[in-house]
Amino acid sequence: MSDSSHIAETYPESHYAVIFTSKRLDDSGVEYERAAERMIQLAAEQDGFLGVDSVRDRDRIGITVSYWRDAAAVRAWHDVAEHRNVQEIGRRLWYTEFAVRVCRVERSYSSVLPDTPESSG
Amino acid sequence: MSDSSHIAETYPESHYAVIFTSKRLDDSGVEYERAAERMIQLAAEQDGFLGVDSVRDRDRIGITVSYWRDAAAVRAWHDVAEHRNVQEIGRRLWYTEFAVRVCRVERSYSSVLPDTPESSG
Repeated sequence: MSDSSHIAETYPESHYAVIFTSKRLDDSGVEYERAAERMIQLAAEQDGFLGVDSVRDRDRIGITVSYWRDAAAVRAWHDVAEHRNVQEIGRRLWYTEFAVRVCRVERSYSSVLPDTPESSG
Repeated sequence: MSDSSHIAETYPESHYAVIFTSKRLDDSGVEYERAAERMIQLAAEQDGFLGVDSVRDRDRIGITVSYWRDAAAVRAWHDVAEHRNVQEIGRRLWYTEFAVRVCRVERSYSSVLPDTPESSG
């Protein structure tokens, strides 16, 4: 029903992506969901935040990619206290595996169907 | 039931990530699923392929991140004829939006719970 949801826009300038991949434990439930939503909200409040895409599937594997203006913005986000706390909880309670990759986006392209109502957004 | 599934391993050396983000049309069904699986299989056969993570959710948003040894391997994968054909079909039939980002992975870290059976893999 969330047809208004969009994927993050691409940016022509050089910028950064942080790829967070995880596999959750069976019993990571409502607390996890709340924390995941809160982290996306908190990221969006940071200086240098450009966008985020986050997908989780039935196999409990998730990929969240957040986009940042530069390496300094990535470091600042890494150091946000509330973010660090949640990372530590995740490491101990929610994930059987996770990986973080900090990447420089060298080029990008995107396409939106011309007859999609929100395509001009 | 696919508890044996693992997220892609990280690599200490500099390498590349291709982030493919998409939103599918309502009616992209079995053909799409087959093509998506085939593309992952085909990618894994290419020289320079390091790994892949792919997740799709109920909102029809998907993220696939493939990892490659270097920029040349990314270009070669981009030019594989069967891959190009499927991209073209996807553009016309399956996606309302998609984005591709080619990134250099500057640093990465990962963690696997010590008591996970396959953690030594």
